Amino acid sequence: MQARTAATSGDDFDQLARDAVYRAMFTRRDVRSHFVADDLDDGVLARLLTAAHHAPSVGYMQPWNFIVIRDAARRRQVRDLFLAAREQELPAIEAERQALYRKLKLEGICESALNLCITCDRQRSKNSPLGRWHNPEMDLYSTVCAVQNFWLAARAEGVGVGWVSIIETEALKRLLSIPEHVTPIAYLCVGRVSEFAPRPDLEAHGWGKRLPLPELVMSETFCGAGEAPLKSAIAALENGRSRDQSAVVEAADQAALGESQREPPKEPSALSRSSLNFDEASASRRSQSGFGTWPSMVSK
Amino acid sequence: MQARTAATSGDDFDQLARDAVYRAMFTRRDVRSHFVADDLDDGVLARLLTAAHHAPSVGYMQPWNFIVIRDAARRRQVRDLFLAAREQELPAIEAERQALYRKLKLEGICESALNLCITCDRQRSKNSPLGRWHNPEMDLYSTVCAVQNFWLAARAEGVGVGWVSIIETEALKRLLSIPEHVTPIAYLCVGRVSEFAPRPDLEAHGWGKRLPLPELVMSETFCGAGEAPLKSAIAALENGRSRDQSAVVEAADQAALGESQREPPKEPSALSRSSLNFDEASASRRSQSGFGTWPSMVSK
Repeated sequence: MQARTAATSGDDFDQLARDAVYRAMFTRRDVRSHFVADDLDDGVLARLLTAAHHAPSVGYMQPWNFIVIRDAARRRQVRDLFLAAREQELPAIEAERQALYRKLKLEGICESALNLCITCDRQRSKNSPLGRWHNPEMDLYSTVCAVQNFWLAARAEGVGVGWVSIIETEALKRLLSIPEHVTPIAYLCVGRVSEFAPRPDLEAHGWGKRLPLPELVMSETFCGAGEAPLKSAIAALENGRSRDQSAVVEAADQAALGESQREPPKEPSALSRSSLNFDEASASRRSQSGFGTWPSMVSK
Repeated sequence: MQARTAATSGDDFDQLARDAVYRAMFTRRDVRSHFVADDLDDGVLARLLTAAHHAPSVGYMQPWNFIVIRDAARRRQVRDLFLAAREQELPAIEAERQALYRKLKLEGICESALNLCITCDRQRSKNSPLGRWHNPEMDLYSTVCAVQNFWLAARAEGVGVGWVSIIETEALKRLLSIPEHVTPIAYLCVGRVSEFAPRPDLEAHGWGKRLPLPELVMSETFCGAGEAPLKSAIAALENGRSRDQSAVVEAADQAALGESQREPPKEPSALSRSSLNFDEASASRRSQSGFGTWPSMVSK
């Protein structure tokens, strides 16, 4: 079966295809703003839902449902739930961060083209719960995988997705007539956007930083030392990405300056104004010209 | 900022790049067999972990850790936990399916190149739990998104991943010295494979079928009628995929026959022996020749 082996061993993803998959992950954003007024085409939404439906699920139970919410009045009610929940959450935030918390835009419920509530039917495999006897929460996790598929497919289609987690679940269930045995997993704002931010919003606003990945890797047991070669390989990748990211942010700043002052960037640069974002435009250009993308650049 | 808008609106994913993202999703498998004896290169594993680390996380808390498990003796201990858990789960399965359940291969703990336990540190945002006050499980969900990123990146790299959910969590925590406040989310078997199956194993063995997606879509409220155009668009996509899938399975059967009998397939077909799997090889060929891939074929 040599032919079959060759056909299915992963060689079917060439470098450009692999880059595209990584690019969707690195440039995906939790979008709360930049939604544009356009409707979302049903053909596109159908593709995104099909992607979600191809998520893994324990025991192949496919526990998800998708509630599409377009009605403006209902969305205002959901937004009211968010606003109430935000006020309730505020005291749980460190005192010195509460002012920043208030400033953060944490939802785009009414501005996005539509909302989507992805739910988990906890009874769908009730007679044969393969893989759920010890870990009954596996159906919830399966549904989260569907959310992530939806999100990545959306990024590849130029559609922004924001996950609103500041909401009281029981109130949401009442508003959407969701029965007792069904759990809402994700309430999403979905729509075309004018841009994807170069960095996550919470990083840009100083709420947090990306943690150094080598510190999150352990060997054999929790906090087990070891895996030095793996950690070195990760650090090399991170340094490469970090350099690119700095160049992006600097170029974005320079371009913004250039836009306002009508002056060119101070130095000639491979990063043109139309490729402000490494993760997106420049990666795309490099990918399409077939060299210099992140995976091939830093490590093979 | 027209230049910026154009650069970041999603046009950076051309049709080939979008196809690659969908292909990773449609051809990802929960792999339990077909692992080959090769080690997994640290450079590849570093890329997969970097993909996981770029998952979304509520409040940007990045709650995950990654425990790499290579030791053969420890893996045998984990496999013993699986075997015990499988016996405990068996009585929960419908009587007429228990024989099938016993036959299913549900893990590849010892045969894969390595194991990976992805955990969630539930205290990482304890002073400022943005987005977790009402839904404290959001950190668990964030970690699942990291698992799914890892899984999709692995598919694009030709690496198989299997999620072992039949395991007793507290026993696993003891075996891996995982502290109380950390929750194991996914125990994964990871390694190069000789092939990715054309269909999910549980479908191939008759355990379940993929549900019709239009029946899982609801409008405005749970079970709300409506969204007819969206459902039609989904049905058109599903029919297209279903036709392709039938052709794949038929071609795979014919090719297997051809391999054993040294006879060519009965009819001339666009599907050669080296493209047994639409989702993989033929999509790749079509993608690389720039026409006829699923998204462009069925709907624009």
